[in-house]
Amino acid sequence: MTTRVGIYGYGNLGRGIESALKYADDLELVAVFTRRDPSSLSLSTAGVPVVSVNDVESYKDKIDVMILCGGSATDLPVQTPKLAKLFNVIDSFDTHAKIPEHFAKVDSAAKSGSHIALISAGWDPGMFSLNRLYANAVLPNGKDYTFWGRGVSQGHSDAIRRIEGVADARQYTCPIESALESVRSGANPELTTRQKHTRLCYVVLKKGADAAKVENEIKTMPNYFSDYDTTVNFISQEELDKNHRGLPHGGFVLRSGKTGFNLENNHVIEYSLKLDSNPEFTGSVIVAYARAIARLHNEGVNGCKTVFDIAPAYLSPLSGEQLRATML
Amino acid sequence: MTTRVGIYGYGNLGRGIESALKYADDLELVAVFTRRDPSSLSLSTAGVPVVSVNDVESYKDKIDVMILCGGSATDLPVQTPKLAKLFNVIDSFDTHAKIPEHFAKVDSAAKSGSHIALISAGWDPGMFSLNRLYANAVLPNGKDYTFWGRGVSQGHSDAIRRIEGVADARQYTCPIESALESVRSGANPELTTRQKHTRLCYVVLKKGADAAKVENEIKTMPNYFSDYDTTVNFISQEELDKNHRGLPHGGFVLRSGKTGFNLENNHVIEYSLKLDSNPEFTGSVIVAYARAIARLHNEGVNGCKTVFDIAPAYLSPLSGEQLRATML
Repeated sequence: MTTRVGIYGYGNLGRGIESALKYADDLELVAVFTRRDPSSLSLSTAGVPVVSVNDVESYKDKIDVMILCGGSATDLPVQTPKLAKLFNVIDSFDTHAKIPEHFAKVDSAAKSGSHIALISAGWDPGMFSLNRLYANAVLPNGKDYTFWGRGVSQGHSDAIRRIEGVADARQYTCPIESALESVRSGANPELTTRQKHTRLCYVVLKKGADAAKVENEIKTMPNYFSDYDTTVNFISQEELDKNHRGLPHGGFVLRSGKTGFNLENNHVIEYSLKLDSNPEFTGSVIVAYARAIARLHNEGVNGCKTVFDIAPAYLSPLSGEQLRATML
Repeated sequence: MTTRVGIYGYGNLGRGIESALKYADDLELVAVFTRRDPSSLSLSTAGVPVVSVNDVESYKDKIDVMILCGGSATDLPVQTPKLAKLFNVIDSFDTHAKIPEHFAKVDSAAKSGSHIALISAGWDPGMFSLNRLYANAVLPNGKDYTFWGRGVSQGHSDAIRRIEGVADARQYTCPIESALESVRSGANPELTTRQKHTRLCYVVLKKGADAAKVENEIKTMPNYFSDYDTTVNFISQEELDKNHRGLPHGGFVLRSGKTGFNLENNHVIEYSLKLDSNPEFTGSVIVAYARAIARLHNEGVNGCKTVFDIAPAYLSPLSGEQLRATML
């Protein structure tokens, strides 16, 4: 059985989904939906129509899972509940603090349309969340740590670009190796924001801009930079384009915990990702979960779910028998 | 609701389960079953009876999940199907090649008694298997690597102890750091057995034994040592007792894989465990899965399952709402 998939929104993540679908023989890309003029988009997959979001309802019976690729700030809070009435949907909503509210809205919409919805798929939230849950369930007496990077933060890059005199910028979030090592040693350190990550900025100035002023404005920017040790490097646009065009990312989830009648033994569980392309990896996770929710919907499951609710076997194209024989 | 638990077999793993149950408020240890004279065992938990395995049937309605702590070679192939007719059961069957056969027998027994059974829980099989499955589902184009250690292999320690002239021994399996680094770099190396692990042995000789002969016998032992670079250190019984009594273990599961329309981007997923006590960590995993299968049985689920079939949320004592608010 082939699962028919739609992509709703065609930015970096949409393209990441499209490329991941190329390697999923049991999933078929049926259409890409856009708010832009459909004729302005050219897909990498031959023969797939680009459709205006205004015509999405006409695809109601032609798509088994709609993958939403909008942003968490303003797109998904509206789009996911709306589309969950028409389709089984999956999104990568990543505003951690607003997940309960988003879940409630999507759950009620999905149930009203007898659909299944999966929110917050990707790697954080997503694979990192899974590892937090498994590690907490296994080691109830312990402490969690999450480190991000080394990777490009698009939010922080955008914040720098909004500064007067800045032509372009790229910001890398970098975990501090000595902090990671301290966690790995089982020392259970208390770490401040500044002790966990540094911020490394590559900035292209506009002609005549004041470098010292820009550097000071970055380093003192509240929320984004003021709580971190921040390094600012001024480079040319050519160098930025040559060396900093990719979207690498990754990070580490660790739990250090104790067992034994007197909690005398320590254990460290570590999960890490080193990603050349954040949107392609995120897309690959979402495609695996699209497979899972299509199957669950065929079994009659409706309503909003998260990665916590999906048994791992549903993600794999292999049968239970094959999985037990090869991966257990 | 409290889940009533029994422990069947009281060796290292049985004690690991007992200590893990101390930190699971929703699970209650009801009895420990033994083939030995029950009066010869003294538990660490006050007020829990030790019962002969011959009387296990009388506990049919007093136990929600029976945790089997026997060995995979001869105990579990008999015990798990037998007890699955009477109880919901969970075991840590770890003979990878025989899992399909074990699964089939346990499945039919569990279904005949309308029970649920979970086989092969622990960390390998178990947490490592989960990570293989997730990583394969997300990165279909890639290569898997598993490294074990640094940790005590009881099978290899036993093999050394069977050599004439050996009074006692401890064998550590050690991953080769340069091989791990090569995998982490995304180089996708082909690694032979010898390139992945070394074997480090601490041996206490009997009086008058020939050290050179023992060392040669260890290093040339087929299956166990001949395919590895093996180091043999002769030490006193006092030193062995002082420095090598623990049962540390751990290891690494990695998948390196490519994404993109032309598979141009590489990603590395790594999961690792560093465990002070192998039986206590294994016991902690099993206790979390005991919670899960008790819940699933209450929902009407029967038959044999593995960690692949259990949605992560079932492992945690927290509600779905709490999990979404704190761990997603």
